[in-house]
Amino acid sequence: MDHQETQAANATTAVGISPTANDERGGRPPVVGMVGAGQLARMTAAAAIGLGIRFRVLAADPAESAAQVCADTVVGDYRSIDDLLAFAAGCDVVTFDHEHVPQPQLLALERAGFAVRPSASALWLTQDKLAMRSRLRELGVPVPRAERVPSLADVQDIADRTGWPVVLKAVSGGYDGRGVWVCRSYADVADVLSHGVPVFAEEFVPFDRELAVLIARSPSGHGAAYPVVETVQRDGICHEVLVPAPGLADHVAEDIMQLGLKLARDLDVVGLLAVELFETRGGLMVNELAMRPHNSGHWTIEGARTSQFEQHLRAVLNWPLGAPTATAPCAVMANVLGGDDPDLHGKLNHVMAADPALKVQLYGKPVRPGRKVGHVTALGSNPATVGERARRAARYISAGTEEP
Amino acid sequence: MDHQETQAANATTAVGISPTANDERGGRPPVVGMVGAGQLARMTAAAAIGLGIRFRVLAADPAESAAQVCADTVVGDYRSIDDLLAFAAGCDVVTFDHEHVPQPQLLALERAGFAVRPSASALWLTQDKLAMRSRLRELGVPVPRAERVPSLADVQDIADRTGWPVVLKAVSGGYDGRGVWVCRSYADVADVLSHGVPVFAEEFVPFDRELAVLIARSPSGHGAAYPVVETVQRDGICHEVLVPAPGLADHVAEDIMQLGLKLARDLDVVGLLAVELFETRGGLMVNELAMRPHNSGHWTIEGARTSQFEQHLRAVLNWPLGAPTATAPCAVMANVLGGDDPDLHGKLNHVMAADPALKVQLYGKPVRPGRKVGHVTALGSNPATVGERARRAARYISAGTEEP
Repeated sequence: MDHQETQAANATTAVGISPTANDERGGRPPVVGMVGAGQLARMTAAAAIGLGIRFRVLAADPAESAAQVCADTVVGDYRSIDDLLAFAAGCDVVTFDHEHVPQPQLLALERAGFAVRPSASALWLTQDKLAMRSRLRELGVPVPRAERVPSLADVQDIADRTGWPVVLKAVSGGYDGRGVWVCRSYADVADVLSHGVPVFAEEFVPFDRELAVLIARSPSGHGAAYPVVETVQRDGICHEVLVPAPGLADHVAEDIMQLGLKLARDLDVVGLLAVELFETRGGLMVNELAMRPHNSGHWTIEGARTSQFEQHLRAVLNWPLGAPTATAPCAVMANVLGGDDPDLHGKLNHVMAADPALKVQLYGKPVRPGRKVGHVTALGSNPATVGERARRAARYISAGTEEP
Repeated sequence: MDHQETQAANATTAVGISPTANDERGGRPPVVGMVGAGQLARMTAAAAIGLGIRFRVLAADPAESAAQVCADTVVGDYRSIDDLLAFAAGCDVVTFDHEHVPQPQLLALERAGFAVRPSASALWLTQDKLAMRSRLRELGVPVPRAERVPSLADVQDIADRTGWPVVLKAVSGGYDGRGVWVCRSYADVADVLSHGVPVFAEEFVPFDRELAVLIARSPSGHGAAYPVVETVQRDGICHEVLVPAPGLADHVAEDIMQLGLKLARDLDVVGLLAVELFETRGGLMVNELAMRPHNSGHWTIEGARTSQFEQHLRAVLNWPLGAPTATAPCAVMANVLGGDDPDLHGKLNHVMAADPALKVQLYGKPVRPGRKVGHVTALGSNPATVGERARRAARYISAGTEEP
């Protein structure tokens, strides 16, 4: 089916708003559609309420995290051009809570005249990590050496040259909720390749720690950078975010913010850009990019004057950006990972009693071991005590114990 | 129809959750139902998202403020016992964004076994202001002298004794969005009486300013008091809230917080209690009580560690209360009143550009002159500049000009 025809057909059943009617709104509130209904869309829905924005999500299932709380939920498949065009009809802007919408579908939305933010061409770099590394290298940004590995023999060749471990990464997505595997032997490599997911091999970077910076950029080119944070990952899952990154020299933090702003501009990102970096003895390397609200920015809900979710909405609507300044000397966000007990609220009660100033976000997702089901944020002036508060609370809600 | 029968009939069509199953939830999230779908319910809906609470509103119309954003909106009439019982089925707690549910309907909910918070007997005092004044006087709390005035002759009698102006107040509700009239002549009195709304007469209190304190109280008796604020009213409409109340001596603020906590306890309030006071040369007088989130507490969304909306949910669910501490040295909330232009977002854009740190809440309500359609909050350390920022922004969004 031709995309233009599909769109025209849908337009007749929609509320009669052309996708480019942004300037002719009159008293009508702006409508933002977010493809995907996970926790990022859920927290964006909360931010949309205060801004008087009509917020719509495209969910695969009405039980998804954001669909539970969003009055305007459309159930559909983000891989279906028809579903996407029907969803977009009546939206002033279409944006995303994940990177999985394939390029032909993104291009179909753009050709139909919808404001797709970030654009298909920007999102491409989050969908093909090898392309992203090439692009960053062209821009003179340090990235780990990477090459495509169609076969075990190619990996063997790399291991012979650089030694073990060898890092394998999914070009896009992954399996079992993971996209990065640190392989210490041929057996590890063979196991990863057996899943048939396209991967590339990357040098193992012996980093000291991981940092991240979150940038917002609007179509008119305005940019805003949040304070640089340290992210603490275990087994490829973010456990904690420390704000600001402890002990980071001011001039390095400034360099990282400038790098983030430059990348957002050079890659023509609209909305949020999260840049994840390795800090190594030899300097900084960019590891990952995301063009959406990001786990490293959850602390901004209470810890920054403008939350990343409000900021994303302001950016994609081409509204003036909000102040990204911190509201407290330090903040620590800790993810709540699922444990054995499906009841989070029973344990949350104890945490609320123990620490009345702690902030919590639960995602409404069924508890499964190791799954991100919520997060907590502690704010204060002493990084050590703030970190301990967040860590203990997250552990307790996960496992019913404060012990690690 | 017998209420018990109605409830039993509804229970079979509900999701099989008994109204008292709070202790047996397992992994099921708690369900809070709020009767009413105005801006208070809308902002409570945003707070419920983070707490992982299933939030349901009873709206008269699907276009109402909270109904626009709440995934679980039931359309019905809060004066219908059948509608209320059907709405409450499946809720762990039923609470309110207004005081207008009549006593027989509240009692029917309680008799059917629902957890009604605050209770019918507590809410009664917000529904009959004369009863509230009598009860406060019994408790030894200073209140303005008041008496029921069935006729113009009674008012004449009062005016002869105390002189003009005479204040008339609706016993419950009011008309044209107002419930208080400062009458300076018999003609004014006759006009008010002509509307047929039951009123009482009250002495005119020559106050210096108005203060308010917001209390949260849980069924287990825990209480929390927010900082005392000054409210600036014009023509019976709240324009601004200054936090903390400027120049208020610490011991007076402490007395007011203790008074609020005592009233919440003595009146057996569960949820929020807003106490509005007159500050006069002769001391303090209690003017109004509300048992719900209150305009004088909107600043808490960004200005307190726990917003009043989160606090109300925690209180009615009998969860531990959150810290009511301020997050900045001072805050000023200014209401956005409707002007001639139906488009708030066009003007909001200019305000966002001029003051990136300003926080805004729009209620999604059609703009009508003088109607509360949103509010802004500024935070900082200098009360004068913070107040000016909030005032200018609210004026601009209202009228497209910064001039008063």
